[in-house]
Amino acid sequence: MRGAGLSVIAVALFTARPASADPAPPPRVQGERIVQHIEALSEFGRNPQGGVSRVAYTEADRQGRDYVMRLMRDAGLSVQIDAAGNIVGRLAGGDPALPPILLGSHIDSVPNGGNYDGDVGSLGAVEVAQVLVENRLALRHPLEVIVFENEEGVTVGSHALASGVEPALLDSVSQSGRTIRDGIQFLGGDVAALASARRAPGSITAYLELHIEQGGVLDREKTDIGVVEGIVGILHSEARVEGFANHAGTTPMDQRHDALLSAAELVAELNRIVTRAPGRQVGTVGWIHAEPGAYNVIPGVASFGVELRDLDEAKVDSLFGELRAAAERIGRARGTRVSFSEPVKTRPALTDPRLQRLIDRSAKALGFSTRLMPSGAGHDAQEIARIGPVGMIFIPSVGGISHAPTEFSRPRDIENGANVLLRAVLELDRNGLAEP
Amino acid sequence: MRGAGLSVIAVALFTARPASADPAPPPRVQGERIVQHIEALSEFGRNPQGGVSRVAYTEADRQGRDYVMRLMRDAGLSVQIDAAGNIVGRLAGGDPALPPILLGSHIDSVPNGGNYDGDVGSLGAVEVAQVLVENRLALRHPLEVIVFENEEGVTVGSHALASGVEPALLDSVSQSGRTIRDGIQFLGGDVAALASARRAPGSITAYLELHIEQGGVLDREKTDIGVVEGIVGILHSEARVEGFANHAGTTPMDQRHDALLSAAELVAELNRIVTRAPGRQVGTVGWIHAEPGAYNVIPGVASFGVELRDLDEAKVDSLFGELRAAAERIGRARGTRVSFSEPVKTRPALTDPRLQRLIDRSAKALGFSTRLMPSGAGHDAQEIARIGPVGMIFIPSVGGISHAPTEFSRPRDIENGANVLLRAVLELDRNGLAEP
Repeated sequence: MRGAGLSVIAVALFTARPASADPAPPPRVQGERIVQHIEALSEFGRNPQGGVSRVAYTEADRQGRDYVMRLMRDAGLSVQIDAAGNIVGRLAGGDPALPPILLGSHIDSVPNGGNYDGDVGSLGAVEVAQVLVENRLALRHPLEVIVFENEEGVTVGSHALASGVEPALLDSVSQSGRTIRDGIQFLGGDVAALASARRAPGSITAYLELHIEQGGVLDREKTDIGVVEGIVGILHSEARVEGFANHAGTTPMDQRHDALLSAAELVAELNRIVTRAPGRQVGTVGWIHAEPGAYNVIPGVASFGVELRDLDEAKVDSLFGELRAAAERIGRARGTRVSFSEPVKTRPALTDPRLQRLIDRSAKALGFSTRLMPSGAGHDAQEIARIGPVGMIFIPSVGGISHAPTEFSRPRDIENGANVLLRAVLELDRNGLAEP
Repeated sequence: MRGAGLSVIAVALFTARPASADPAPPPRVQGERIVQHIEALSEFGRNPQGGVSRVAYTEADRQGRDYVMRLMRDAGLSVQIDAAGNIVGRLAGGDPALPPILLGSHIDSVPNGGNYDGDVGSLGAVEVAQVLVENRLALRHPLEVIVFENEEGVTVGSHALASGVEPALLDSVSQSGRTIRDGIQFLGGDVAALASARRAPGSITAYLELHIEQGGVLDREKTDIGVVEGIVGILHSEARVEGFANHAGTTPMDQRHDALLSAAELVAELNRIVTRAPGRQVGTVGWIHAEPGAYNVIPGVASFGVELRDLDEAKVDSLFGELRAAAERIGRARGTRVSFSEPVKTRPALTDPRLQRLIDRSAKALGFSTRLMPSGAGHDAQEIARIGPVGMIFIPSVGGISHAPTEFSRPRDIENGANVLLRAVLELDRNGLAEP
């Protein structure tokens, strides 16, 4: 009899399945569907050479948002654009008294960026909502899927929602060429009613964001899921070295006040300062200039950009203090004068430890390996942390590449991340932040 | 009796003067006259903010040259413009069989330059000739005072005289906007007959050039006269570091391939390599770039200019070799790749030891302090060294400043330098290169 063997195995498999109190299998996202949606979204702003330029407030951005709103409606969400221009898709909850669970991310990109930064979290959240609807899994809490506008600029949409927007920011010109004020209107927001988009502290149960790591740690370690401890604080300062420009042929080595030499010594010193301390802090010099800038002239002025990041603001301050002390020493030794512009700082935003554990539990229950890690990049979650507990789920970025056309996350990892998000939402809805 | 005291002193002074075989006092230049001529010349190309822009092949250059030719004629020289555009003022010698003694320098300037670089030597040489004529001191050798055209470009006029000019150089565009070919014609030269300007090796007795130091050694040491050992050789090469551009927030320190960090370490290393070896070699990094050049991106590419100078070409090569070895080490340690463009080299030109001693003797006889020193800057003398013995006399540059409106040499130092030149010419005419 053809097929008799298979039938035996099938029977054996079904027999092997343990009897359960809840006979319905736990819901799972459809990974293929998320990937299809990512591919469809990638059409809006696609670059001929690959990658995407869906810069906030451009026509590509608006078209991409229209597409995502259509997806949300098709999934059964009720969709609105808030006054700040954020897309808010909502599922009603069984208990309207409970504050909503928020999921979200963004779909705007940097110029010449990739198709995973923001898109994975936005479309992953839509998928989670769709799976809930499809499986008739009604939640107790209202669920909101938010696609924040202009994350790549300065997390404008999430900032507006959590903290309001300063008038000076509204008047600033975004990378689209439009002011943020005009950009919000362009997307269907209402700057005059901006206050209506604001949410009060304590008004949400939690905010969860799925995102690609944008670094290479998970990929290198072959870890499935990153549980984000927090989003690092950032310090920027411009260093300026003043020496004395002179003829490179006629000025003996011991008579020089070489601004670039001092700058170079400081660049190397910053690396030593940052790497000799224990921890995961990072420090970067990304740009440098020397003047007048000719082969045969000793530079009289050199300037460069200092960036420091860590989860601990005090550590960032202390590293910067060490750099300033090194600058004093080098300046004295070299006959130059080093000054730093007033540091511009973004404060670190920590995720909620209960949500860290919830994400870790959810991932492990699904059989995934995890690691706790900081987010070195900024995210909308850092803004939302001002009004309630936030958690973030990272999935691997192949080769650690991001903000580039070659940015890539494997379909399997995208599916894994969305499944962790789904499972975390279900437990959160069941137990709130209470832990088992 | 009024004045009796003074008369007594005067008699005593005259009495104190030793009787001499040659009753005529040794001739001296008129320092004030040179300074007046420098001031008059400074009108041509004068900048409103000070200093001068008498760039070769511009109208200001031509006017300045007309002025100098007038001075030469007034001094009694017969003046011609050779086919290369050099001004040649000549005094016949008593023995027409003797090869000429050449004196010279240039009067073109860098854009926004000063009034001493080149001018002191050119007008000092004219003064020497004028004093000879005024004192009826007929020389045995013909004397030629040459104002070379376009020294600041690439010592074009002296190169044409000593080596001829390559066609590619003629077609290159000078800082005036004119090609060198057109520039030479503009000054009254004759490119078609360029070969006629060329002088054969051995066709001159010697070439002497008075020049400002353009560095701060003499001024700082309060030394009157620098006896130039030679004009240093120069090596230029562009270093290019290739790393990997990445997100400055998400890339851990031990996962970076930071091109700028490697470049900075190399800039500091070049300084160590150049300063730890004994000698007066100099090494400079005058320009640097990092790409893409933002606070939050680890630079993927950095490039910078390397310049090395020394009197000894082998030493320049050896220092460059040490830098390449350091680049290998740093690249290996940092996961970057460092390459250097094919070095562009100017070979060192040594002055004649007999002329060094002649200049030193002449200066000491006049009561001046001297020091032997290299010339870190290029000069017409380096070209003329190919056809005969050359010597150079340096006078102090206040503060070591040159190629700038604040370039300055004191009238007294200018007078001293011209007197050394005059005395050296007289001895050279008397004895040739034979030493006492």
